[in-house]
This record gives sequence, structure tokens and C-alpha cells, in this order.
Amino acid sequence: MKNQHVSVHAFVPALAWARQYDRGTLVSDLVAAAIVTIMLIPQSLAYASLAGLPPEVGLYASMAPLLLYAVFGTSRVLAVGPVAVVSLMAATAIGEHASIGSPQYLAVAITLAFLSGGMLLVMGWLRLGFLASFLSHPVISGFITASALLIAAGQLPVVLGLKVEGAHFFARVWHLVEQLDQMHVPTAALGLPMLAFLFWARRGLKPCLLSWGLPPRLADVLAKAGPVLAIALTATITWYGQWHLAGVRIVGTVPAGLPPLTWPQWDMALWKELAIPALLISVVGFVESVSVGQTLAAKRRQRIEPDRELIALGASNVGAALTGGFPVTGGFARSVVNFDAGAQTPAAGAFTAVGIGVAAMVLTPALYYVPQATLSATIVVAVLSLVDLRILRSTWAYSRSDFSAVVATLIVTLAAGVEAGLVAGVALSLLLYLFKTSRPHIAEVGLVPGTEHFRNVLRHQVRVSTHLVSLRVDESLYFANARVLEDRVNALVAERPQLQELVLQCSAINDIDASALESLEAINLRLADSGVRLHLSEVKGPVMDRLQGTDFLDRLSGQVYLSHFQAVTALAPDMLQ
Amino acid sequence: MKNQHVSVHAFVPALAWARQYDRGTLVSDLVAAAIVTIMLIPQSLAYASLAGLPPEVGLYASMAPLLLYAVFGTSRVLAVGPVAVVSLMAATAIGEHASIGSPQYLAVAITLAFLSGGMLLVMGWLRLGFLASFLSHPVISGFITASALLIAAGQLPVVLGLKVEGAHFFARVWHLVEQLDQMHVPTAALGLPMLAFLFWARRGLKPCLLSWGLPPRLADVLAKAGPVLAIALTATITWYGQWHLAGVRIVGTVPAGLPPLTWPQWDMALWKELAIPALLISVVGFVESVSVGQTLAAKRRQRIEPDRELIALGASNVGAALTGGFPVTGGFARSVVNFDAGAQTPAAGAFTAVGIGVAAMVLTPALYYVPQATLSATIVVAVLSLVDLRILRSTWAYSRSDFSAVVATLIVTLAAGVEAGLVAGVALSLLLYLFKTSRPHIAEVGLVPGTEHFRNVLRHQVRVSTHLVSLRVDESLYFANARVLEDRVNALVAERPQLQELVLQCSAINDIDASALESLEAINLRLADSGVRLHLSEVKGPVMDRLQGTDFLDRLSGQVYLSHFQAVTALAPDMLQ
Repeated sequence: MKNQHVSVHAFVPALAWARQYDRGTLVSDLVAAAIVTIMLIPQSLAYASLAGLPPEVGLYASMAPLLLYAVFGTSRVLAVGPVAVVSLMAATAIGEHASIGSPQYLAVAITLAFLSGGMLLVMGWLRLGFLASFLSHPVISGFITASALLIAAGQLPVVLGLKVEGAHFFARVWHLVEQLDQMHVPTAALGLPMLAFLFWARRGLKPCLLSWGLPPRLADVLAKAGPVLAIALTATITWYGQWHLAGVRIVGTVPAGLPPLTWPQWDMALWKELAIPALLISVVGFVESVSVGQTLAAKRRQRIEPDRELIALGASNVGAALTGGFPVTGGFARSVVNFDAGAQTPAAGAFTAVGIGVAAMVLTPALYYVPQATLSATIVVAVLSLVDLRILRSTWAYSRSDFSAVVATLIVTLAAGVEAGLVAGVALSLLLYLFKTSRPHIAEVGLVPGTEHFRNVLRHQVRVSTHLVSLRVDESLYFANARVLEDRVNALVAERPQLQELVLQCSAINDIDASALESLEAINLRLADSGVRLHLSEVKGPVMDRLQGTDFLDRLSGQVYLSHFQAVTALAPDMLQ
Repeated sequence: MKNQHVSVHAFVPALAWARQYDRGTLVSDLVAAAIVTIMLIPQSLAYASLAGLPPEVGLYASMAPLLLYAVFGTSRVLAVGPVAVVSLMAATAIGEHASIGSPQYLAVAITLAFLSGGMLLVMGWLRLGFLASFLSHPVISGFITASALLIAAGQLPVVLGLKVEGAHFFARVWHLVEQLDQMHVPTAALGLPMLAFLFWARRGLKPCLLSWGLPPRLADVLAKAGPVLAIALTATITWYGQWHLAGVRIVGTVPAGLPPLTWPQWDMALWKELAIPALLISVVGFVESVSVGQTLAAKRRQRIEPDRELIALGASNVGAALTGGFPVTGGFARSVVNFDAGAQTPAAGAFTAVGIGVAAMVLTPALYYVPQATLSATIVVAVLSLVDLRILRSTWAYSRSDFSAVVATLIVTLAAGVEAGLVAGVALSLLLYLFKTSRPHIAEVGLVPGTEHFRNVLRHQVRVSTHLVSLRVDESLYFANARVLEDRVNALVAERPQLQELVLQCSAINDIDASALESLEAINLRLADSGVRLHLSEVKGPVMDRLQGTDFLDRLSGQVYLSHFQAVTALAPDMLQ
């Protein structure tokens, strides 16, 4: 099953692809890296500002993590760096310990990245990747949509030159509407057209470029460069008209140079308070990264290894912390661009890191006049593409409990923030699952004529017997539902005076725990008192192994049959005629 | 199914049995009441002192609750009053808000009973009785055993005339051993022999009485009166020798008279802090009471209704709060005595309440010289009979996860107290269940020759095909395990190049949630890309209903078959030869 190379180089997948690296791959990777670099510069600035950090921190967080992921990651095209949802979560967590702009704010951001990276490494070492599956699709959908709305509600005021504060989504929207008349006109004059342009560019730019006769692949890549175009344009206008003197907020001086070497704060009290946010950031970042990675890997029939992704993302975040950055993960937009631009190996990521390094050394003066409003407009457009309200309709149609999980995550995230929303969503979906399994479906089954197959008497034309009842319990028997079967059997015995044999078809019983075993013993005794024998059929191997370790089977008034048909053949031959 | 009388008199079961009440029943009930009254007096004093309350409070808590249960309860023999575990939980909760002996301590006890009663009423009204089933047998066993050990460790020093403080079991035992040399000799001279006598009386008194020629039923009842005998004896000795002047702690003055009318404290801050303890007391009390009630009802082919028991216990606790009492529930020892003494209807409980009322008015002077050491000795003997360590061995043999739940509940209760222990036990057993279902057993199955039945290829001699694989997933598919099936199918396709048909036997899939549906869609697409068709068989009615509401069945590359045999007949006829 597993590639031998992979198992030898278990922790450094780079060794596997580096051997087969040739000139063709190099060219592909270099081209992809150049394109991704151009696209990443505005994105890194924007997400740093979303996290409340200076712009250069966004650039720093796009270097070391990319290099480290290139060494440890199992996806060939994933691009690691600041992403929207994680930046929002970081901003929330850091905001509780420092005020934006203070040196302490950056120090907490670095500590948060370090903790989050450490946790990912530990989870990877313990192979806890499966834990991420407890974040269900409905919870992730609701969470991403709500986070996107939260971010948009926070960035839209910047596009309009307003300052809106608000603990939650509804307060932000309300304050925005209230203050709309105080809009800063020059800022909005830049921001609103860019917002419109970026929205249009998402869908309209590529067909437009194609109609100009550009080759499809180039059109594809250029269409994604809309934000770069918007930034270049508005920076030029601001410089030419010196609009910043009229109050248009600009990025300003970005220190040139490579990332500094930094250390997290060794403050246990702070670590303790950051532990929960760091854990949530780790899990959300991991889930986002793995789902992007899996989607892209599947397109080229490659696979990624979740447990090793934990290691790679952990190393990336520790790397971010040691080089002045903040929490990072595999981003959707940048990875798709990397994939579309033809990246073949993680070397493309390493080249991108070099490209950003060059930009950080020589390009920062060019960023001086970039209006904050344009950065915010790029964020608004990027996050609104994550809003997916169709999930509400589809889960409503499919399953009320999935629907409730989406709605609860959505509303709690909007009203009480990202951490509360995530915790509420996971807790509710687990509780709903437990609730469902605590009230199992129990069907009385009969023989489908002409077969050896048994189905629900209420749904199918089947044969039954007067003195034998076949019950199929559609759930594992465990403490939360053990009494339901007892009640059902008690009622059945009271209803059918002619009953002599009760056969439990155990095909859907995947486990019987100690509480349920006691219930079965009670049922067996009570039935025996009423002159009814209890039989089991189709008991699964693992369940049978367990039962054979107890004296339940000795005390059972009836038999255990391999198949339900054999049970009925032996006990109620009249049913076969 | 349901008795018509019962449904008419849904909330006052007393109306049902009161109609058929005759002289024979009256005599039985009166005799039982007389016996239970005698036994309840020392027990009420003892549990009041366990809860840190004055002795008369124990008597008060044995009157109104008994009367109210007689009206609303569905068990015919349950005796409601103070019990050991609930008294311990109450002492823990009250101790955080007041010091023993202060008027505030009693006020908090009354408020706790009121809150607990109110919660039980609300739970009954909402029909939440099923929630109690989330307390699994292992958790209950571990909790009862640990509580009994905690109580014994707290009462044993009193038997020896010592004062031992300690937050947890291990500290108490340690301090007891340390202080053993400071034992108060006159107290121990009374306490230790009584402890020995009471231990012996549990098993030895009845055969002894029988050998004296007493009729079996009388011997049975008298054997349970050991504590009464011990109290009468030691009170006489103390009075005769005036041992209380030598430092033997006695009950002292017990105010004579009927219970006072009392009100809970209307203090929202206090209510908020008592909410969690009150909830835990309600749930534990309810579970204990229902299990005692069910055990005794089953012996006479009667049934109890859990949701109406909630109402009855709620009314009893509110009644206790309004008459100067503290939290109560249906007790094992007193109910068994009531049952054995021949009680026929809840009227026996009402007569007992009257008996205790008379005792509270005229007998209290006789209680003056009762040594605290004797009361504590009765508690130690009573609770040690609840210790059940065999559950450790039986769950170890049966299931490691049940064993872990017992051990965790036991240790956390001993080390961190009753509330933490209960919460830890429930949380752990739910997490273990979720963990199990997140890693489902997936079996490849083949045809059992001569039948239409399919079993695991690793366990049975079965027929398989080269181009068809049958997989049986032994778990409902939901978010926590959806990816496991994806991984297994991916691995299978990689292993078997000849594979053309994959049939999922869905007999154990009781639910498919939205996340799992997405996984199935991904599996279907990926298999189609590899030239393998995906089929389903034996999809259950409720699951099929859901799937038919989506377009999954249209996109499915294969078919849905009623039985797995039909699927194989159609797809791999070679397997039948």
C-alpha cells in the first residue's frame, strides 16, 4: 500500500521528490513562484492588517513558513501563509491581551504562533489528525461563512474611511449604517470603485482577457491578479494626487529587509490564557489546510497524509514565530493560484519565499502610497466568496440536525465571536449525534417472500408469524439507549399474548456495552418469566467475541443463529410456507 | 398497552389505587408503616448529621416528602427521605456557602432542596426522564462506591471520637491514621463494638433469630432493626454512666413538634451558584430512586413511569424545602424494608409519615443520650454495603472503555469530590463512545455457502469474487468517521487492480449525515474515475428516505439492491456456483 520511499523518508517528504527533480520541473516551479509572489504581496499586507499587525509582518509570515512547509509538507502545491479566518481568530485572541499598535501586540502574536505551532507538532507526533474529523462539514461551513461575514463587516468601514467598533457582527453592521453619513469621501472614492472592480474581476476579467486574444492559461493567472492591479492603480492615484494629505489612510513606511529573529514570550500566565485560542486556531488552520490540500491532491491523483501535515504546519507556525510572523496555515486562494500556475513540487513554495524576501528588501518603498481602503476591499471580496448560504437550504432538506449545527455555529459565531461559535458548533453536533443514538429506530421485520431477507413490516410486504417476533435494533446498544429496548420489549410482550419466541436481529448492533449487557440480561429474565424465549441472530464477530467472555450466552433462554433466516427456519417453519 | 385508569389519572396515580383500597390492604400497610417508622428514626438522624444538619431536620425531611410521594409517585413501595449519597452531595454543596451549625447552613439546605425539586418538576414536565440514561451503569457504580468510601472515611473518625478534616478521601484516611493515637477512648468503647455488632447483624442476626424459633418474616424485619437496637443500647449506657460528661458526643436536645413552615432564600446569586449542585443532586437522586423503584416493581410485575417519578420526586423535594427539610430521594434500604414488611400501596408511606410525626412530637427526649458515634457507626455499615469493587473486574473483562469509565469516576470522586467525579464519569463515557464510533469496524464479507447470508471473510469460510468486493461498515456514517471509509476504499482500489464492482452492505448503517453524504459522493466519483461502480444494498428505510431527497442516487454509478444476495446475484453470478 505505502510507497517505500515515503516510509523511509517519513518525516521529510522533500527527500522523495528532490531526487526526481529535473530542468522541466524547475521551469514550471519558477514560473508558478513568480506569479504567486506577485499575488501574495498584497494578500500578505491585507491579512496582516486584518490581524491588526504592521504590513511587514504579513511579508515575514509568508517566508519561513513557506520554506518549512516545502521541506515537511506532503502536499505538492499547498501555499502556507496568513489566511483570512486564522487572521481574524488571531486578532480576537491577541486583542484580549494587548492593544493594536503596541509592541506587546506583536509579541503576543508571535507567542500565539509559537504555541499553535507547538500544539500542531505535538498533535502530529501523537497522530491526532483524526480529531479534526470531529469538526463536521456543517460546522465548518457555518463557521467559515460567519467568519467571512464578520471580517467583511469589519473591513467595509475601512473601505468607506470609517472607524466602526463592535463586539459582534450585528453591532458592527448597525454602527456602520448609523455612521454612513460621516463617510470619508476621498477614501470611499478610491475604495468603492475598487470594491466594484474586484467583484467584477472575479468573474468578468478572464472572459474579457480571453476576448482580447490572450492564451487561456495566461488569462487564468492574470484574472487572479486583480488585487495587484487595484493596488497599483490606487497607489498611483494617491501618490499623484497626494490624497493621503486629504486624510486617505495609506500603508506608509514599511521597513525594508529580511525578517528579524524573534522569540515568543516565556510568560506562563500568558501561555495559559492563550492555550484555548491557540488550540482552536491550530484545529481550524489544520482543517482548512487539509481540505485545500486534499482537493488539489485529488486533481492529480496524489494523496496527502493528515498526520504529517500536522508536523509540517506545526513547523511552519514555529518558523513564523521565530521570524517575526503570526499564525499561518495553507490558504485556499494562494494554493489554487500556485496549482493553476503549474507548480509541480514544493520547491515552487521555496522559490516564492525567496521572491517575497526580495520584495521585502527592495519593493517596500513602492508600498508607501497603497491605500488601506484598497487592502480592505481585497479582503472583503476575498472573504465574501467564502460565504455559502446554500448549505442552509441543502442541510434543511437533508437533515434537521445538520441544519441546526450550521445555524447554531453561524449565529453564535456572528453574535459571540469565533471561539464561542466553533465550540458551540462542535458541542451541539456531538450532542445531537448522542441524542439520535439514544433514541434508536427499532423495526419489527418479516421475511421478503422468495428470499432469505428480512425487512420492516411497516414498509414492505413481508411474512410474519403469530408466535414469533423478529426485532431489528438500528443502533449499537449502549448506556444511553439500553432502556429503550427494554421498554419496547416489555410493551411487545404485553400486546401479544401468543408470543413464544423473540429474535433480535443484531445486524445493526455494532457494540454492546456493559450497561446494555445488563439490560439484555434483564430482558432475557423477564421474557423467561413470561414464557418467551429470547434468541439472537447475525451477531457480529467483535460483539460475539465480547459476549463469549461473559455468562450471558449460557443464561440466554434461546439460541444464537448465524443468520436470521436460519433462526426463523428453526423456530417458525410456518412462516416459510 | 396503557391502563385506562392510569391515563385518566395521569398525574395523581393515588386516585387509581385508592378506589380498590380495602381492609386487608389497610392492615398490610399499617404493619409495614409501623416497622418502617421505627427503622427510619435512627436513619433520619444519621443522614441529617451526615449532611451537617441538626437531627430534627432529618425527621422533618421524612414526613412531607413521604406524603407527597404517596400522592404523585408511581411506585407502590418506594420510601422517600434522606439518603446517604444525596446527603453527602448536599453537605458538599452547602458547605461552600455556610459553616456547619449556622442558621445560614440550614437556610442553604432548604434552598437547595427547593431548587432541586423545581428542576425535577421542570424535567418531568418536559419529559426529560430519558436524560438519566446518560449516566451509564459503570459511572453509577463507580460513583456510588466512591461516595460510600468518602462517607465511611468521614464517619469512621466520629466512631472513634476523632475530628478529621480533609478535602478528599486520601487526605481523610491519612489524617485518620495519623491521629489514631488521640482516639477518645470512651467514645470508641461505645462505637467500635456497635460497628462490629452492626456488621455482624447484616448477615448473622436473621439466622440467629430464626434459630430462636421466630417466624421467618418477623426475623427478616427484626434483622433490619439492628441499628434501632444499637441506638437503644448505647443511649441507655450513656445515660446510665453519664458518659457524655466524659466527652462522648451525644445528639442532645431535639426540639419536639411538627415541622415548621419554611421558605427558600430568594437570593439569585445563591441560586446561580447552587444550580449545578442542585442539578447533579436531582439527577443522581432520580437515578437512584428509579433504579430502586424498578427493581421492586419488577418483583410484583408492576411498572413505574420515569417521567412521572420526576414529578413525584420534584414535589417531594419542594415539600421538604417548605417544611424545614433538605434534599431527599427514594432510598434503597427503607424501600426494601417497606417492601419486605408487606406494604401494598403508597398509603403505607403516608402512615409512616404520620408515625414519624408522632415520634417528632413525643419521642425526642428519648433521643437526648444517643451517642453520635452510634449514628456514625450505622452510617458506616450502611454505606459500606454499597461498595461494589467486583464491577472493576467484570468491566475489565468485558470492555476496556466501560472499565475506564468506572475507574475515572471512582478516582475523580475520591480525589476531587462528588460533583467533579460525576461530571468526569459522564464526560469520559460519552467521549469514549464517540471515539469508538469514530473508528468503525469495516469488514469485507463473502457468501456463506448454501445460504443467502454474508459474513466477514476473515472469520468465516465464505465465497468471494475477484471483480466484486462487498464491504460491511459496522457503524452509522457521520462526520466523525466519514473519512475512515474514504481511506479504506482508496486503499482497496489501490490493492485490487481487477476490481469492477464495490457493494456497500448498509445493514449496520443506521444514519448518514450531511458530512458522510459528501464523503460517499467523493467515494462514488473517485471510484467512477478508476472504472469501479459503487452499489449499495440493504439500505434501511429511514436512511433511504433521506437519500431519496438528494441527487446522490441519481449520481450513483451503480444500483441500490434490497438485499446483498440480490446485489451479488446480479453483479457476480460466478460467486454462486
